[in-house]
Amino acid sequence: MAECGRVDSNTSHTMDKSITLPPDEIFRNLENAKRFAIDIVRSFDHTAKAAGDKLYEISMQEEVTARLHFIKFENAYIETCLDFIKDHLVNTETKVIKATVDKEDEMTCLIKGCNFVLRNIPHEAFVYAKHADSEFRFQTTNPDIFPYLLVNIGSGVSIVKVESEDKFERIGGSSIGGGTFWGLGALLTKTKRFDELLQLASKGQHASVDMLVKDIYGGSYGYLGLTGDLIASSFGKSATADKEFSKEDMAKSLLHMISNDIGQLACLYAKLHNLSRVYFGGFFIRGHPVTMHTITYSINFFTKGEVQALFLRHEGYLGAIGAFLKGAEEDNPNQYSWGENYAGSSGLMSVSPDMNPMQRARSGTFDMLEMDRLERQLVNLPLLQDPSSYIPDTVDLTEDAPAREYWLYCFEEALDGVVKRAVASQPDMPEAALRAEKFRQKYRHKLQTLRQQPFAYGSLTVRSLLDTREHLKSIKCVVLLLCSFLEFYKRPWLVDSYDQWLERLKGPPHKCALFFVDNSGLLSRGTEVVLASNSGPALNDVTNGELQILTERIAAMDPVIEAGLREDRLLLVQSGSSSPCLDLSRLDKVLAMVVRERQTDLVIIEGMGRAIHTNYYAMLSCESLKMAVIKNSWLADRLGGKLFSVVFKYEVPVGKPNKDCGAFSPC
Amino acid sequence: MAECGRVDSNTSHTMDKSITLPPDEIFRNLENAKRFAIDIVRSFDHTAKAAGDKLYEISMQEEVTARLHFIKFENAYIETCLDFIKDHLVNTETKVIKATVDKEDEMTCLIKGCNFVLRNIPHEAFVYAKHADSEFRFQTTNPDIFPYLLVNIGSGVSIVKVESEDKFERIGGSSIGGGTFWGLGALLTKTKRFDELLQLASKGQHASVDMLVKDIYGGSYGYLGLTGDLIASSFGKSATADKEFSKEDMAKSLLHMISNDIGQLACLYAKLHNLSRVYFGGFFIRGHPVTMHTITYSINFFTKGEVQALFLRHEGYLGAIGAFLKGAEEDNPNQYSWGENYAGSSGLMSVSPDMNPMQRARSGTFDMLEMDRLERQLVNLPLLQDPSSYIPDTVDLTEDAPAREYWLYCFEEALDGVVKRAVASQPDMPEAALRAEKFRQKYRHKLQTLRQQPFAYGSLTVRSLLDTREHLKSIKCVVLLLCSFLEFYKRPWLVDSYDQWLERLKGPPHKCALFFVDNSGLLSRGTEVVLASNSGPALNDVTNGELQILTERIAAMDPVIEAGLREDRLLLVQSGSSSPCLDLSRLDKVLAMVVRERQTDLVIIEGMGRAIHTNYYAMLSCESLKMAVIKNSWLADRLGGKLFSVVFKYEVPVGKPNKDCGAFSPC
Repeated sequence: MAECGRVDSNTSHTMDKSITLPPDEIFRNLENAKRFAIDIVRSFDHTAKAAGDKLYEISMQEEVTARLHFIKFENAYIETCLDFIKDHLVNTETKVIKATVDKEDEMTCLIKGCNFVLRNIPHEAFVYAKHADSEFRFQTTNPDIFPYLLVNIGSGVSIVKVESEDKFERIGGSSIGGGTFWGLGALLTKTKRFDELLQLASKGQHASVDMLVKDIYGGSYGYLGLTGDLIASSFGKSATADKEFSKEDMAKSLLHMISNDIGQLACLYAKLHNLSRVYFGGFFIRGHPVTMHTITYSINFFTKGEVQALFLRHEGYLGAIGAFLKGAEEDNPNQYSWGENYAGSSGLMSVSPDMNPMQRARSGTFDMLEMDRLERQLVNLPLLQDPSSYIPDTVDLTEDAPAREYWLYCFEEALDGVVKRAVASQPDMPEAALRAEKFRQKYRHKLQTLRQQPFAYGSLTVRSLLDTREHLKSIKCVVLLLCSFLEFYKRPWLVDSYDQWLERLKGPPHKCALFFVDNSGLLSRGTEVVLASNSGPALNDVTNGELQILTERIAAMDPVIEAGLREDRLLLVQSGSSSPCLDLSRLDKVLAMVVRERQTDLVIIEGMGRAIHTNYYAMLSCESLKMAVIKNSWLADRLGGKLFSVVFKYEVPVGKPNKDCGAFSPC
Repeated sequence: MAECGRVDSNTSHTMDKSITLPPDEIFRNLENAKRFAIDIVRSFDHTAKAAGDKLYEISMQEEVTARLHFIKFENAYIETCLDFIKDHLVNTETKVIKATVDKEDEMTCLIKGCNFVLRNIPHEAFVYAKHADSEFRFQTTNPDIFPYLLVNIGSGVSIVKVESEDKFERIGGSSIGGGTFWGLGALLTKTKRFDELLQLASKGQHASVDMLVKDIYGGSYGYLGLTGDLIASSFGKSATADKEFSKEDMAKSLLHMISNDIGQLACLYAKLHNLSRVYFGGFFIRGHPVTMHTITYSINFFTKGEVQALFLRHEGYLGAIGAFLKGAEEDNPNQYSWGENYAGSSGLMSVSPDMNPMQRARSGTFDMLEMDRLERQLVNLPLLQDPSSYIPDTVDLTEDAPAREYWLYCFEEALDGVVKRAVASQPDMPEAALRAEKFRQKYRHKLQTLRQQPFAYGSLTVRSLLDTREHLKSIKCVVLLLCSFLEFYKRPWLVDSYDQWLERLKGPPHKCALFFVDNSGLLSRGTEVVLASNSGPALNDVTNGELQILTERIAAMDPVIEAGLREDRLLLVQSGSSSPCLDLSRLDKVLAMVVRERQTDLVIIEGMGRAIHTNYYAMLSCESLKMAVIKNSWLADRLGGKLFSVVFKYEVPVGKPNKDCGAFSPC
């Protein structure tokens, strides 16, 4: 039983030394290191003016955001890496480059890294289905990540049971791993490069080398339930045949042999330890479809579908992330939450046959992962009916091809306008035009990538498209607060529970209302009110910092607000989000605490991003109001309405009567 | 769930067709068969005279003994096989050659064969220990053979859970098996012959090809409990090294890779299904020490010693035996018991490094197994205290090197005398001298083989040496009945419970006594008496057939015997044995029934072979008398006595009071 933090006396752990090097010696001594994480602490540009008496300038004050950069490449590319660093990073405001050497205690780092991505990156894990419409089926993030089985396929295979952050055990392993594929592959094909071997394998026919059940029995061996195409003996035909075998066929056979073997071992260990979540990682996987397919097939075959093979979008980073976390333990990185920065991260590569196979042979290029540190921990909204089945997004654009096409088109169309407004909003910044142009190029490229690889960052959604745009603005380009209080258009509305809501208002007042604000004002009616606003900037949405100042000024003019604040009946709390959308499973921990303590019995979600693109179908355990005006004709059409249709969705949880709800009938 | 006898509708099972061919077409149509069993029904020479009035001639009447011959070789040796048949079999009194083609339903045959050898061949299963004094540790035969796990390593691997004679299930398998070793080995080394590959492997150093834990970590990875010499990645070094690897090293690495993998799978399935007996079979094992060692190592490693890897002396015959049994189902072979004929079977091959490796590369030569059919079923003596721990033999000559040397010397010394007596006993048989000379040569060769390979037929014992000698006499050479009633030499005796026995005789009479006779007369004292004598001939021991006639003649002269026979108080029952020794776990079923029905409370075992060489330490659940005169000075010395020392061992089971035993104190 391994326990994190306990160091065996006969091994020396030098892994968590962080070394700071002068720029010209950055990579000296690192050439023999197996892997290293480059952790760049980047300071933001503090060009924004100090808070003045103009409301909107306040938002320019940005906190210094901690961001993790992980860059992944093979040792052979160390020179290229140096050029890359020079071109990409030295030009920025980089102040310090810390390189964290990962030398020992791989396993601890791996587990730390795995826990980290599972907890912090939504849609990190996915099921691979070769023949399905969308080959990746991403898993909803469940904060309860333990226990799980991690099958790490590096040179060899380690099978690790992880029970908690600090408790894991290597319960099994195998010497038949990536090194075996590479080593045997090199001997058989004279091809020395791992990625070329994978490429060969993707073109081969294993059946010309392997002995199948039908080669022995002429068909299936029904008596034992073995189908004819099942491999009876890997390389079984090469024992006696006098012919030459093609490199492709041998590589494919090898890949099958190894993947199947690992799949079976994994599933046996999962059964023995009663674990249903099995993640596969390590350099052997590397997003390669043949590997993922054979492992998935193998797991399905051996567990008859009871256990699913799960893969990780960032499997190649686990060790580096863990090494960083271990080196940064004094900062206690687990006290923060982290979010993937879509702008700085390279996504999952396509697998479709029309892609150049070398495009996905990524060891020769660079893979990047950027994580933004959120200063506070994110948790589920305690009022979610079933957190494990909660999906923030209303439409999954990865699966819904017409919707995907529309929205990608839509965001591309809107790009010019966004850029124009960005430049216009910063008249006294001479570099604004140049920056805006860079943003335009990057976002257009990202949209093109997403068109081909909608699965690059997990499930593609309107929310992720909006967030990507936000992430790409390296400084805030647009800061506008359009105080558009909810406008009521004339009925009929698209969704109209307004009468029920009015009826409800005749009943006893709510104890406490939680109001997720976007760019609208606030609603107050005697009930305690928790105003949850964004922690960081996104679009023109008000941030908590802005709202604090705004509310104080309003309080100076309005005695109701003033009393509310003074008597603690009006609370301004940050949501934990920096997105124009709302993910109720990643909320600020303090907000969650307030919600519980105040016995919140009404949640108000408002605006397109928060109430339509996300949370339209979210089920809460208390009453809720979802309000928005559909400002997009395609979406209006999709939902069966017209442009500027009103959605006023008042919902009361079914089958969960609210004791305090009084006269209102649905209770 | 597979069930024996149920045939899946979409496969055609042609396997159990027995075909009888004219001699010149014996092997026609068989060249493409994977394996075949040659089942020779040999008729014995009926030269013995009919029963006359001379007591001793009666024993010449022999029953026709059914005997199974299994011959094992590679297809390539079909021509050699034909020559072999011509040279070895056509000269004998062979009447019919039945060849049973094994084409389909391998698994059913395999399981049938496995059940058969486990039930019928003592010391069939063994544990392999490379570094132990004797590398084979044979397992006591337990009639309760189910459930067990059979790991059959042919081209691929099948892992089968066997729960009863008719119920088995293929619960797992792997495509990484013997075909993979052969196929990959052929590609890597250009060596096409399986046995040469094994030979290469036995000379190689896997560590030059495999990446070990210490190659990565500089030593052990103590944190995870991995020793430095553990293989981290099979063929891991060949991925990047630019050097050439030797054929030997690659073959060894391959063998390790495959054996370890199978070992791990087997142990996981054993754990999952809670099975402690795991047998390994199939052509990949073939008694090869490197394979057995790595599999044993792997099982020990993965189960921490909880599960033992068991191998079978006749693993290569399982399919052929099963095929025969299936073809002979109308004869119901399971109603009989069978015994290994040491004369006609080639034993397990030596593994010592001074043996020519090609000597054990047996696929190029012939392996033979001969099984004698005993007409009746053999079972445990119901009076054994603990059948599962019962070991018939007093000294294990496999483990006890000085004892082994003495007895091999002793049997060799005695050979001339035996041959001389054999010739002298058959004055009217002109061919007796020639036969005796053949016997002398064969037995001397057998003794030489056993000197080098004491484990060839399981544990070597005085009993097995005696039995081998009996088996080698193709017809009875010596038939003498020396009516030597137990002689009492003057005390002190070596073991002397005689006074206790006399004391006991003052108590109530025994209900029923079971007397295993050898060449002595019988003892009767009011108590019911069951006289158990050999079923078949061995040395000069009286057989049941002889005893029947003998007793009838005595009854004509003696009214006590006459009354005993008439009133059914004296029973003559065959023991089921044809050995000068006595294995209480292989007794005739009828005898066992009689023992139970008569509530036998006294067992008398008498003579060197039955009471000293075997059963000296046997624990019975009733009173027992073991009596013998030590007629061998070395043995007398070993046991702490002198030549002609008397053993009179009267034992009463401890802790198991006999309700009916009356006054006798030890109860």
